[in-house]
Amino acid sequence: MSSDNPIGADNQQERPGFEQWVVGFVDGEGCFSVPIFRNPTCRLGWQVQPEFTVVQGGRSVHVLHELKQFFGCGRVGHNGRHDNHREDLFHFRVRSLGDHLRRVIPFFVANPLKTAKRDDFGVFADVVSMMAQRLHLTPEGLRRIAEMTQSMNRKAPSRFLESSEAIRQPPLSDRRGEEMVLAAWRHAED
Amino acid sequence: MSSDNPIGADNQQERPGFEQWVVGFVDGEGCFSVPIFRNPTCRLGWQVQPEFTVVQGGRSVHVLHELKQFFGCGRVGHNGRHDNHREDLFHFRVRSLGDHLRRVIPFFVANPLKTAKRDDFGVFADVVSMMAQRLHLTPEGLRRIAEMTQSMNRKAPSRFLESSEAIRQPPLSDRRGEEMVLAAWRHAED
Repeated sequence: MSSDNPIGADNQQERPGFEQWVVGFVDGEGCFSVPIFRNPTCRLGWQVQPEFTVVQGGRSVHVLHELKQFFGCGRVGHNGRHDNHREDLFHFRVRSLGDHLRRVIPFFVANPLKTAKRDDFGVFADVVSMMAQRLHLTPEGLRRIAEMTQSMNRKAPSRFLESSEAIRQPPLSDRRGEEMVLAAWRHAED
Repeated sequence: MSSDNPIGADNQQERPGFEQWVVGFVDGEGCFSVPIFRNPTCRLGWQVQPEFTVVQGGRSVHVLHELKQFFGCGRVGHNGRHDNHREDLFHFRVRSLGDHLRRVIPFFVANPLKTAKRDDFGVFADVVSMMAQRLHLTPEGLRRIAEMTQSMNRKAPSRFLESSEAIRQPPLSDRRGEEMVLAAWRHAED
């Protein structure tokens, strides 16, 4: 980990233990996801969009602004859907690859999650690392990412893996992709 | 707060910041509720049952056992319902009035929640304090508790307030009940 990591430096001084509150809150309400959706402007016609999201009802929107301030990135926005909740829903969301690399991932590497969300975070971090090396712009890398993210908190099967582009390719039966990710991730940590 | 509060003493030493992880996790996943349901064995025919509950999927059941160890009370159990989740659900739940008074409430008074759940906790703590003084065994106290808990995280209206027992009584239009609770709570803190 970088020794000059600036995440929440001011807040940590003012509120000792706030990092662990963030970890606990994200263990409860956070979501690391890697949706892959059609985008004709992308080289392969598919966009990989790693997202870190926390949702709250309107009465607690202030904690989303605290998260935004703490991580020093992301946006707080209003959800269009209510999803059976009685109050309006809001989200804190980080989508920028640079913010994931510099802010979100280093924080949760230094302050590990305690629930099974830790596994989702691991896949998320591996995908971000692959994207930093532009592996998602190759057919094999894109397919590997779709396979890796199938096990995450998703209910529907990957649209990419069900698409004709993916079906035309043979399955990745070796572990080469995973080794590449691990090597890249170790490199990123140096 | 009592200076010899034993909650999580061992854990705090081993894992600094675990208290704040607990606060964050409960801000995300915890629930303070005060269901009131018919029970013919109770003096007034209604039972008041303050509950502190945290629910997790099977992959994260280990954190519920950590909560049980941390608070030194409560039970971890299997939920009968799946509620649209793909995995089995488990709960950590505290129901004992003594455990609420000695373990749960002192912890969250010393380590306040940051989301709107803090309001639910406040009502929960007030009701527990009233019950410690056996006010729930009087018709006026029971009615007051039902009115206080109407604003909590409930979707259905109070069955007690809709019942004939409650309808026979005039509404509490003064603030006497609330003052009693506040006085009792201050007394309990001494």
